[in-house]
Amino acid sequence: MNTVEKMRLPHLSTVQYPPEMETGPSRPAHLRQVNARGLLRLLREHNPCSKADLVRLSGLSAPTVSSAVAHLESLGLIENLGEGESSGGRPPGLLRFHAEHGYVAGADIGGTRLRMILADLNGKVLTQWSTLLTEKQRTPKAVCSLMHEGLKVMCQEESTSLKKVLHLTAGAPGITNVDSGIVLSAPNLKDWDDVPLRTMIEKEMGIPALVENDTNLAAVGEHWRGSATGVEDFIFVALGTGVGAGIFLRGRLHHGANWSAGEIGYTRAEGCSRHPLQVHSPGQLERSIGGVGIEKEWMRLLGRSRRANESALTKLRASEIFDLAVDGDRAAAEVVHYAAQILANCIVDLALALDPEVVILGGGVGAHAELCRATEKLLQQNEFACPRVRSSSLGTQAQLHGAISLSLSATENRLLA
Amino acid sequence: MNTVEKMRLPHLSTVQYPPEMETGPSRPAHLRQVNARGLLRLLREHNPCSKADLVRLSGLSAPTVSSAVAHLESLGLIENLGEGESSGGRPPGLLRFHAEHGYVAGADIGGTRLRMILADLNGKVLTQWSTLLTEKQRTPKAVCSLMHEGLKVMCQEESTSLKKVLHLTAGAPGITNVDSGIVLSAPNLKDWDDVPLRTMIEKEMGIPALVENDTNLAAVGEHWRGSATGVEDFIFVALGTGVGAGIFLRGRLHHGANWSAGEIGYTRAEGCSRHPLQVHSPGQLERSIGGVGIEKEWMRLLGRSRRANESALTKLRASEIFDLAVDGDRAAAEVVHYAAQILANCIVDLALALDPEVVILGGGVGAHAELCRATEKLLQQNEFACPRVRSSSLGTQAQLHGAISLSLSATENRLLA
Repeated sequence: MNTVEKMRLPHLSTVQYPPEMETGPSRPAHLRQVNARGLLRLLREHNPCSKADLVRLSGLSAPTVSSAVAHLESLGLIENLGEGESSGGRPPGLLRFHAEHGYVAGADIGGTRLRMILADLNGKVLTQWSTLLTEKQRTPKAVCSLMHEGLKVMCQEESTSLKKVLHLTAGAPGITNVDSGIVLSAPNLKDWDDVPLRTMIEKEMGIPALVENDTNLAAVGEHWRGSATGVEDFIFVALGTGVGAGIFLRGRLHHGANWSAGEIGYTRAEGCSRHPLQVHSPGQLERSIGGVGIEKEWMRLLGRSRRANESALTKLRASEIFDLAVDGDRAAAEVVHYAAQILANCIVDLALALDPEVVILGGGVGAHAELCRATEKLLQQNEFACPRVRSSSLGTQAQLHGAISLSLSATENRLLA
Repeated sequence: MNTVEKMRLPHLSTVQYPPEMETGPSRPAHLRQVNARGLLRLLREHNPCSKADLVRLSGLSAPTVSSAVAHLESLGLIENLGEGESSGGRPPGLLRFHAEHGYVAGADIGGTRLRMILADLNGKVLTQWSTLLTEKQRTPKAVCSLMHEGLKVMCQEESTSLKKVLHLTAGAPGITNVDSGIVLSAPNLKDWDDVPLRTMIEKEMGIPALVENDTNLAAVGEHWRGSATGVEDFIFVALGTGVGAGIFLRGRLHHGANWSAGEIGYTRAEGCSRHPLQVHSPGQLERSIGGVGIEKEWMRLLGRSRRANESALTKLRASEIFDLAVDGDRAAAEVVHYAAQILANCIVDLALALDPEVVILGGGVGAHAELCRATEKLLQQNEFACPRVRSSSLGTQAQLHGAISLSLSATENRLLA
């Protein structure tokens, strides 16, 4: 028998389908559909494999499998590759999932840049595209047009048609109602309050879409093929221009009652007293250890040590400061400690409430290994509330992979609809 | 047709059963079991009702329902009450769930007191029992014997046999592994580290048991028949001698990777700087707004206003101080504000991470309406992260009701086993 290796598909559970319920007598047509869907999933996980493999893996009878396979072939979802390796008897015909049957796309709407990605139905990345957003281009309408343009460019590059793109997931830098597809507020963009982004995308491009908060998407990406693979309870903390978290519990994102779970940028930072929270002014934690906060702390320390006139040093970005710390610069090491201390305090409070298995640090500032090391060291002083800390392995690509993951999940049930 | 009112049963989802999966062809014996279980649940929710009601409510055929009802009657789980109100045709025979078929028990192990409760299979409370724990009685073994004694006393009172008690849920004041039934640590008791409490109870009494953290039990109780009825995302915050939370998300408790989710007593309190966390020393939040912390603040304010020699005032407990505030005492009002401020800061951080629909304040100190009012007022200054705040409606009985709820869930599937 040919070796069957298991491939990692996005969890269906990241998108909420109603569970299959058996309430009345079994309906054969319904069962046929369930069987075909289950076999397609098995084939995608063990791609390629033989009919005999599917019989073994599914526990279904050979005639049932044959009939479902014929149905899936007629839909263009699977291909027969001909003979595979034989274990002795009749050579098995190898079946392959037809990953180019369609495509899925992802978009990450940032404060200054729009990035896009195109993948096949195996989740294999085919191409990416990105553009800077001018001031004028930061409105919902302009972003939608740009997404459409980016998608066309990517399709052209891959010599395929826009019609074969089955689904698009877009990440927005703000509080997002996934059910209604509305971006409730995105302070870093222009005029993004209560924007029906999903409807806008679907109208503009004619492609079913899903809209999610960007940090949540990054968490999904890390769970699918990044640092949180196989971990069902984790917190993804993104430090960049902004600070936020994706709360991933029991195998799925936790959104909260008002879609604002994970807005930790507004939590307390040591030494600051609490003021009433306002959506449109940055939070304490964000001001302290977002990129700007870290750069300010660096300038403060430089001033103290009278090195501020070393002009090469004054223009450093947070991640460059962290690099200097690795090279042994004392002031830079102090900045790392400053950020790690504030971050560790925040993580302790999160861990006390949620007891996650792992905390993943991501984002342009947060994914730096030096920050991760320093933060974990501080956490290890505790007898408890000291989750492991890992750097994001997908870095700033996490959102885009998360988008592909959600689009693949959303597409799965429609392939057979 | 007779009026069918719906009764609230504990959610099955609070205990984790594997979901029913349809993988192969339907097996009739399995389906019969599923049908009987489903019908029993319907009957318990709409108790009493007729066979016709069950046919209508289940969507199953009349012969299927009749056969299942006969099976349930033979097991002693349902009774035929004879004729009910007729809607015109043949008078329907009313069926009633036989709630005295068995009993469930709950226990709440406190630092100074053991409390117990006995209920029928409808969750109706039949009797309670409690005893003070002397220093010597605070060991796991002594507590187990006392639980056994309490159960016997309650059974005697209800003229029933211990054998009819089908399940016992015990709440422990510490971090508890529900799967293994081990209390990992309970600093307020004596020698409670890694105590296999579930096994000890089962051996001592011969009754299947479940062990859970006491605050988590209180959250379950509030969800079942208290202030959180119908709310699927809430945080139960208990202030008493200790401070802790039950994190209830998507309709069930969240336990975390090390069973320590909700240990918020160790989170930061304003004005204190962070020290490494140690299991056996009380946390910052607990020291600040646990009962002792509140009483200390009261003494501090009395000292400032030179009223400390009013001996009647010096012996007040936290809830009595809150009562004084309601009566207009200025210093007492300051204490309420002090506690509410620290509590609100903690709730904001929790709400930023989890975005719960409601926060329930419970425990001997926390359930006071004045604290609830003051805390909610502070939270309302925020544009977001301002969940509704409600006082526990079950008060210090919440744990016991939670225990009944979990025992009823655990029993449900065994009734037909």
